[in-house]
Amino acid sequence: MEVVQVLHMNGGVGETSYAKNSLLQQKVITMTKPITEDAITKLYCSKYPDEIAIADLGCSSGPNTFFLVSELLKVVDSVRQKIGQKSPEYQVFLNDLPGNDFNTIFRSLSDFQNKLRKQLGPGNGPCFFTGVPGSFYGRLFRKNSLHFVHSSYSLHWLSQVPQGLESNKRNIYMASTSPPDVLKAYYVQFQKNFSLFLKCRSEELVDGGRMVLTLIGRRSDDPSSKECCYFWELLAIALGDMLVEGLIEEEKLNSFNIPMYTPSPAEVKYEVVKEGSFNIDRLEVTEVNWNAYQDEPDLSDAFKDGGYNVAKCIRAVAEPLLASHFGEGILDEVFRRYREIISDRVSKEKNEFVNVTVSLIKA
Amino acid sequence: MEVVQVLHMNGGVGETSYAKNSLLQQKVITMTKPITEDAITKLYCSKYPDEIAIADLGCSSGPNTFFLVSELLKVVDSVRQKIGQKSPEYQVFLNDLPGNDFNTIFRSLSDFQNKLRKQLGPGNGPCFFTGVPGSFYGRLFRKNSLHFVHSSYSLHWLSQVPQGLESNKRNIYMASTSPPDVLKAYYVQFQKNFSLFLKCRSEELVDGGRMVLTLIGRRSDDPSSKECCYFWELLAIALGDMLVEGLIEEEKLNSFNIPMYTPSPAEVKYEVVKEGSFNIDRLEVTEVNWNAYQDEPDLSDAFKDGGYNVAKCIRAVAEPLLASHFGEGILDEVFRRYREIISDRVSKEKNEFVNVTVSLIKA
Repeated sequence: MEVVQVLHMNGGVGETSYAKNSLLQQKVITMTKPITEDAITKLYCSKYPDEIAIADLGCSSGPNTFFLVSELLKVVDSVRQKIGQKSPEYQVFLNDLPGNDFNTIFRSLSDFQNKLRKQLGPGNGPCFFTGVPGSFYGRLFRKNSLHFVHSSYSLHWLSQVPQGLESNKRNIYMASTSPPDVLKAYYVQFQKNFSLFLKCRSEELVDGGRMVLTLIGRRSDDPSSKECCYFWELLAIALGDMLVEGLIEEEKLNSFNIPMYTPSPAEVKYEVVKEGSFNIDRLEVTEVNWNAYQDEPDLSDAFKDGGYNVAKCIRAVAEPLLASHFGEGILDEVFRRYREIISDRVSKEKNEFVNVTVSLIKA
Repeated sequence: MEVVQVLHMNGGVGETSYAKNSLLQQKVITMTKPITEDAITKLYCSKYPDEIAIADLGCSSGPNTFFLVSELLKVVDSVRQKIGQKSPEYQVFLNDLPGNDFNTIFRSLSDFQNKLRKQLGPGNGPCFFTGVPGSFYGRLFRKNSLHFVHSSYSLHWLSQVPQGLESNKRNIYMASTSPPDVLKAYYVQFQKNFSLFLKCRSEELVDGGRMVLTLIGRRSDDPSSKECCYFWELLAIALGDMLVEGLIEEEKLNSFNIPMYTPSPAEVKYEVVKEGSFNIDRLEVTEVNWNAYQDEPDLSDAFKDGGYNVAKCIRAVAEPLLASHFGEGILDEVFRRYREIISDRVSKEKNEFVNVTVSLIKA
């Protein structure tokens, strides 16, 4: 199996996990809930299994870590009660990179389990939790040991910055001014990663096992379309301004690129069909506003500062990348500028993250 | 299932894990290696399975965490190479209480796996690692999901201080001056815990699955025999001196008892037979000198200070118990005195920990 250089940022410690545990991410899970519910219900009703092994890939560490699992278990428990079945035993594998803060997850597990027991009532479970450190761009589980795989807001991260981006200069991601070979290099890296991911999971899932994946993506066929690249373009503007002022070096900026790919539904479908292990049950696109907090009636005005919230989300994921490339010294200044730029745009235009969700069945 | 108040000290963060990662503990694993090797070889050769799921209960966090696993994998790999079998896939479950430092284990996993791959050579594995937080006095794994369970130096810890120890006064464990009802209360708690442990594991192991358990124990039929109680008696002396000097309160000392039980081989056998899920393959007693370092030629004299080493091992496990009962303020003084007392005894007499190891097969 190919050894991949693991740069993808699913989860992580401290600030890095902010994005995964933000209200934004919770909205995404809630928004894609009909698809997830549908998949776990179909899985359960196809065989009424005695046990269900669920893996959440890129689980991070925070309130959202358990949010998905509790949603899944509630669905199965509701169905099995309706039809008078005995509860299956659950095995939940929480996966993230080894740098993720598993200690915090494990120490809050007991509270979560008590809460879950109360929510589900008597006769459910038991539910066994394990932590699985490692990159999902490689095997993580035994053959045929999983029934259900979930991953949200993780798979758009590539295992490494694509090679051959020398001509991407002032851009830090795919942009309208990126040369075609840059767009190609990004796409090739995505294809490599995503098909490896599918292959690994197909070995680990039982026949008929299911998988629901949500990535940040795009509707457009154009990989440099504004809908998926805009928040990086604005960060590139902040960095560009700092270059002009001599606060960062040109060579540094020219060689900085974000290891991410935001695929279209067609690109996801193409990889699934090509890899061949899975059938597509559903493939859907949803949108979530950049400022997920703005519709929350109970939050103070400070929280409703769109610039602050989006900048904080992006900072959470971009900070380690920027820090390792430019050094930690520039971070506060970059994000001060980024927040200003975002605040300005948020007040003038509506911007959304586009999510691509695919529900798969192992053939 | 009974809800147990989990006080047992298998592993833990920082100092607590010192004992489990000491040279002493490594000597114990090495000393019991013939039994472990025999068990995993018999397991493998009975069916040549495609996959082996191994659980190490009370894995702690430190060099010894991976020591056992690598020993087991080397044995299987050597056997399967001799007979020309394809390597099984391994799933390793590392269990300890939720307070254990799993982050450190996970972050050192990659180095360990690279080392292991080199040691075993091509064609072995893959080996998947997961962390499992929770008390082993309860279910931790799915039904019939394990092939091999190992636990070393953890199962002598009880889930709670036995009830009804009011008359144990100045003793802090079973001692020659403990009244019979105190000895009984300790034994009852051990029986309850150990049989619950066996019941849980029998549900989790496949038929023919194996389990090797090593506990601190005793040869004697007398539960207050010096061979198992002496290191606590010496700590009680240190605490008693501090009481006389008014450094701790009488009521506090009278109500302090160590939640541990050091069974005889006969007591272990009795519980196994009574619980009924396992057959005993081997039941053996070994000894390891209090001062495991004294025979090491490469260590400086400082390390060979028996008082220092034993006191450090005992401090590692006793510190959290003492701190929560007496407050942190007394710790340095207690252990300064304890070290002096131990140094004196070590220079005059040879003292050993007695280990009881049992190798079991699920009937």
